[in-house]
Amino acid sequence: MSTATYTVTGMTCGHCVSSVTEEVQEITGVTGVDVDLPSGKVTVTSQAPLDDARVRAAVEDAGYQLTS
Amino acid sequence: MSTATYTVTGMTCGHCVSSVTEEVQEITGVTGVDVDLPSGKVTVTSQAPLDDARVRAAVEDAGYQLTS
Repeated sequence: MSTATYTVTGMTCGHCVSSVTEEVQEITGVTGVDVDLPSGKVTVTSQAPLDDARVRAAVEDAGYQLTS
Repeated sequence: MSTATYTVTGMTCGHCVSSVTEEVQEITGVTGVDVDLPSGKVTVTSQAPLDDARVRAAVEDAGYQLTS
């Protein structure tokens, strides 16, 4: 199992949290997503280490940005 | 036709706008809802003048507050 934490900017409310969570959960191998709205920290648990580009794409699909 | 403008607090993003719009549109007689996010102004068009309590209830159902 693998855990990685990313920082997402632009989330302002619970709806934003839901949008990011849903998109990231759709990545193959992801088993858990935890979002902390005030800090923008998104912790992703997966069966194997994720390709960060996949996470970035999911976050951008939701309408937000990953900090580099 | 009747138009009334209300001020809603707590909306922070487009999802919030959608939530308020959807709830207010469900009020019987409402024909149009326009939300301006930066100001929180919600303009409601209806066939006949609305009961403000109905609008307040809809906004609160969406999770936001109407200023008095």
